[in-house]
Amino acid sequence: MGLNPLKLLEERIVKDGRVKEGGILKVDSFLNHQMDIGLFEEMADEFYGLFGSENVTKILTLEASGIGIACIVGQRFKCPVVFAKKSKTKNIDGDVYRAQVESYTHGKTYEVIVSKAFLLPTDRVLLIDDFLANGSALSGLIKIVQDAGATLVGAGIAIEKAFQPGGEMLRNQGVRVESLARIKSLRDDGTIEFC
Amino acid sequence: MGLNPLKLLEERIVKDGRVKEGGILKVDSFLNHQMDIGLFEEMADEFYGLFGSENVTKILTLEASGIGIACIVGQRFKCPVVFAKKSKTKNIDGDVYRAQVESYTHGKTYEVIVSKAFLLPTDRVLLIDDFLANGSALSGLIKIVQDAGATLVGAGIAIEKAFQPGGEMLRNQGVRVESLARIKSLRDDGTIEFC
Repeated sequence: MGLNPLKLLEERIVKDGRVKEGGILKVDSFLNHQMDIGLFEEMADEFYGLFGSENVTKILTLEASGIGIACIVGQRFKCPVVFAKKSKTKNIDGDVYRAQVESYTHGKTYEVIVSKAFLLPTDRVLLIDDFLANGSALSGLIKIVQDAGATLVGAGIAIEKAFQPGGEMLRNQGVRVESLARIKSLRDDGTIEFC
Repeated sequence: MGLNPLKLLEERIVKDGRVKEGGILKVDSFLNHQMDIGLFEEMADEFYGLFGSENVTKILTLEASGIGIACIVGQRFKCPVVFAKKSKTKNIDGDVYRAQVESYTHGKTYEVIVSKAFLLPTDRVLLIDDFLANGSALSGLIKIVQDAGATLVGAGIAIEKAFQPGGEMLRNQGVRVESLARIKSLRDDGTIEFC
């Protein structure tokens, strides 16, 4: 049966993650540039164990690095996946939900949009993303779910930087946040400590 | 056994696609905003039938709308998936392959990058994307594969706008391009004609 997916992801982070200056964790060899789909399947199994009884009807993520994980999770839940788009796209209809998202990595704020046709009041929505740090991306997706009048089941996160405020903020708002790996600290000597 | 995936995608385009002015085909209810993962699985089976004997070691796509299909194709081929990133990301190492891609939808040129660590001379690369029109995105990915000294197996495309020049240009260069739906014309009355 092997190790459970939580331990698997933590072990993979220790094995292949790299700590850069300023609290940046690089996991681009398996999570958000090159993607290990077998690992995503095990993560999807874990999310299904956590949220499988919640009658999820839609997975919601945002471009770009959440899309791969979200698709494998959607496959496991047998439901469609919607990704919020950065709103530069002219090629989308006007009837959209909008939210502002602050990117600390890129040092700017951008708008994401979801077509109203793809989030209905009857939907039970599970949010999926690769990282949770300050919580700005998740907060934007939550606003969109609320604007749609849909039900928010919770959020499934691959890696939570528990030393940043997003997770606590969202849990204090009553959002069920489940993270497969929770990082307590990233030291400049490259050491990664989990919660 | 049902219909073969080629016909399935064409039928889905007829059923759920919408033709907008200026030769724009909107397939955002199942392909590139909301994503039907069951459909992606059938498309992946079709690509595996076409390229399964080519010993593909890596799937390469670019953000954002190619990622979902590419992940399900990578699952079928049991190999990692890499997506070329738009190069605004400060959060990536300097050692990258670069290419310029022209976006006709957004009316601008942008740079995409792939970390050198994730494309090796030993790799046999299958490109995956949702659309082929002018061929700029695929040409950028092909340049990156060549710069890496990897072997290009070919390109698997969901929807080719055969009335635009990209497909012919790439086939004339000797690239094996396989498109699951090839559109001959999009009329302003909403009619979609396939090749």
